[in-house]
Amino acid sequence: MHMISKVLIAMDGSESSLRAYEYASFLTKRCDAALIIVNVCDVFEKITDKIKQEFGDIAKKIEAEGGTGITMQLLDDYKSQAENSGIKQVKTIRREGNAAAEILHIADEENVDNIIIGSKGIKSDKEFLLGSVSYKVTHYAKCPVTVVR
Amino acid sequence: MHMISKVLIAMDGSESSLRAYEYASFLTKRCDAALIIVNVCDVFEKITDKIKQEFGDIAKKIEAEGGTGITMQLLDDYKSQAENSGIKQVKTIRREGNAAAEILHIADEENVDNIIIGSKGIKSDKEFLLGSVSYKVTHYAKCPVTVVR
Repeated sequence: MHMISKVLIAMDGSESSLRAYEYASFLTKRCDAALIIVNVCDVFEKITDKIKQEFGDIAKKIEAEGGTGITMQLLDDYKSQAENSGIKQVKTIRREGNAAAEILHIADEENVDNIIIGSKGIKSDKEFLLGSVSYKVTHYAKCPVTVVR
Repeated sequence: MHMISKVLIAMDGSESSLRAYEYASFLTKRCDAALIIVNVCDVFEKITDKIKQEFGDIAKKIEAEGGTGITMQLLDDYKSQAENSGIKQVKTIRREGNAAAEILHIADEENVDNIIIGSKGIKSDKEFLLGSVSYKVTHYAKCPVTVVR
């Protein structure tokens, strides 16, 4: 019997990630599983330290928002929401780096049974049906991945 | 609250589709949902009527196996297995045509809440991480899609 005891939800503040959260919340409750809410900030990947110094204030603001509109506060809010809805074990993880790579790393480290992800991230091109992060995670994950539209 | 009341499992007899079945069976039971077991036979797409006539016996044998090793009997066996495991509503659907297109059609017709599919079908190239059917279904489905490895 396939068991789902740990679920990873990747959030970036996009509409599809909010729907993915609803799905993950439902699934986690039904399976009496633990929920790991993940947000990866990759905005600094392409910003050199020099620019960081010159535009310190702007950089700090972007960093606080994770470049995706998900602030640390918001991640905590989702944790509270999940706990209030009856999920017993909830954890948040915030990382910097390449979003797909970090989501896959965390899935391995935490040994999750299911990754839930929105079909399109906040920075996805409207012309594509699947964002690049969802695309990579679906291709390279070792566990089942659920793509929510 | 996101609800899962109808789950579609696409099966072609591949190893990943068997793992996808285990996942679907678990999910369906946990959500007290209905399960639709789907197999699409697309072997005749590229076989002309003329060849069908000339190689009638072989063609019939391939047709019986759905070109994928999933005979109608096997589909019924999975239905029995699902029912015996406690799933109340189980239905099987067998179609001929393009696998991805038919899975998407059935998902629409049956208004399912979740499609479960193996990452690689029986005819998938070993070099690719995701088979072409799983790839298309993940890109074009209107509902959440879970890819099982």
